[in-house]
Amino acid sequence: MENKIGIAKTEITKVTGTLASQSSDYLVVEEPLEIRLGFAKNGARHQKPISVTMRTPGHDEELALGFLFTEGIIKSIEQISTFSRPPVRWKEARENVLLVELHDDVAVDLGRLERNFYTSSSCGVCGKASIEAVRVQGQWEHTEPSPLLQAEILHTFPNALAQQQSIFDHTGGLHGAALFDASGQLLLSREDVGRHNALDKLIGLAMQQNLLPLNDKIVLVSGRAGFELVQKSALAGVAVLAAVGAPTSLSVALAEEAGMTLVGFLRNGQFNVYSCPERVMLR
Amino acid sequence: MENKIGIAKTEITKVTGTLASQSSDYLVVEEPLEIRLGFAKNGARHQKPISVTMRTPGHDEELALGFLFTEGIIKSIEQISTFSRPPVRWKEARENVLLVELHDDVAVDLGRLERNFYTSSSCGVCGKASIEAVRVQGQWEHTEPSPLLQAEILHTFPNALAQQQSIFDHTGGLHGAALFDASGQLLLSREDVGRHNALDKLIGLAMQQNLLPLNDKIVLVSGRAGFELVQKSALAGVAVLAAVGAPTSLSVALAEEAGMTLVGFLRNGQFNVYSCPERVMLR
Repeated sequence: MENKIGIAKTEITKVTGTLASQSSDYLVVEEPLEIRLGFAKNGARHQKPISVTMRTPGHDEELALGFLFTEGIIKSIEQISTFSRPPVRWKEARENVLLVELHDDVAVDLGRLERNFYTSSSCGVCGKASIEAVRVQGQWEHTEPSPLLQAEILHTFPNALAQQQSIFDHTGGLHGAALFDASGQLLLSREDVGRHNALDKLIGLAMQQNLLPLNDKIVLVSGRAGFELVQKSALAGVAVLAAVGAPTSLSVALAEEAGMTLVGFLRNGQFNVYSCPERVMLR
Repeated sequence: MENKIGIAKTEITKVTGTLASQSSDYLVVEEPLEIRLGFAKNGARHQKPISVTMRTPGHDEELALGFLFTEGIIKSIEQISTFSRPPVRWKEARENVLLVELHDDVAVDLGRLERNFYTSSSCGVCGKASIEAVRVQGQWEHTEPSPLLQAEILHTFPNALAQQQSIFDHTGGLHGAALFDASGQLLLSREDVGRHNALDKLIGLAMQQNLLPLNDKIVLVSGRAGFELVQKSALAGVAVLAAVGAPTSLSVALAEEAGMTLVGFLRNGQFNVYSCPERVMLR
């Protein structure tokens, strides 16, 4: 198997009916990424591994940034001093560990790190408590039902994302996330083997470009819209989250609470609006 | 929103083109589950929360069983003494916490629990190390290329699973996993909002029925076959893992190492075989 970034070639047996042939195929690359946090406490610097996720290599800094922010571990990109690749025992692992150093004056909630449970499950362990935890952390207010978004423009988003998803074309194995403005312009997009990672990368990239809060923007995700995707979007202040697939009970409840417009099953000229439909303009 | 088990009804705005109508829709229910482990150490009983996963309520014991086994935390169902719902602060959370008590003589690797990183990332943090970690834990040997499975029979699996997926019909939001024998008989199936949970529930159910190792069985998953699904299957001894969607670079590498046949893109009378094709009989 030879690897390019994001794509690996492999030999397969291709079967149609009961006829087999030898063929080449392309696979999406999946490798673990350990995010390590460096921080100051009691006058000394410390390091702590806080997450391992299976991801498609590339845009690791954006992934770490989006993850740390949407899990409530950092409040802004300014809290980070450097990203680096620390020395590790296995040479092959070097590209799979990212050290994120915070400035000395950033207080880290070690309890949050120790629990390793993060936002979605930080208290109580029920849907209501999960939603409350996101509300408490949210920095943004959706005071107005803006942007006003035309239905015709929403219908164009899945194609626009598909045109950006170069790896998916080859492998069929990637999730995509894209950021649009209300005029229908695609601003940013990212893809990853993991649906959460694709959105973390997109939000991290938006943070690098100083675009937060995304309260005049629309995010499209290529799959379903589960609770954690709505949570990440809410913490980034997203006005409209649109998904090609289905939402869940808890994601709809959170979107309502957050004042976010949640669109599902956006495909083939149709969509459903699950919360805050007043942002969508219809004829 | 009124909830039945696994399904919640909601009111939506349904848009076709630019025409809107008010309608009802069904959502898959998503709620957190905290798995708590009870164990003996130094003559006293201890409890430790070890995981929170967003899941569809129902079959929680199977989910916990499959999770604990495929993460290497327990070796067999016999190590468990009881499942219970411990008292919790929030009444609503009672159904979302499951306490799994192990017998006094079961040694728990507290380091593994502390790290909270589990099998897929337990050492080194690179694909090679992840595969090595699974190999070390694997209890089963695939000595023979059995079962011999006819291509015609494989083609029938997706429809058989779809017929079992009652919630998906209503919500479009669920992943399914099913166990088949080599004659094409569907033995067991489970579904969940999370793809890993669906497989954990299936493996947990198979453990309850004393079916492990699954080295004469085939598992079908409704989505893609990422590393963690191959890992879980390998630890359950599965001979053939078939996915309706794509595999990844690391899942193919692990399947080869584990001697497991990995089938991808199983749909519309076609499929690809990524490893150990000798188990599939062709004309």
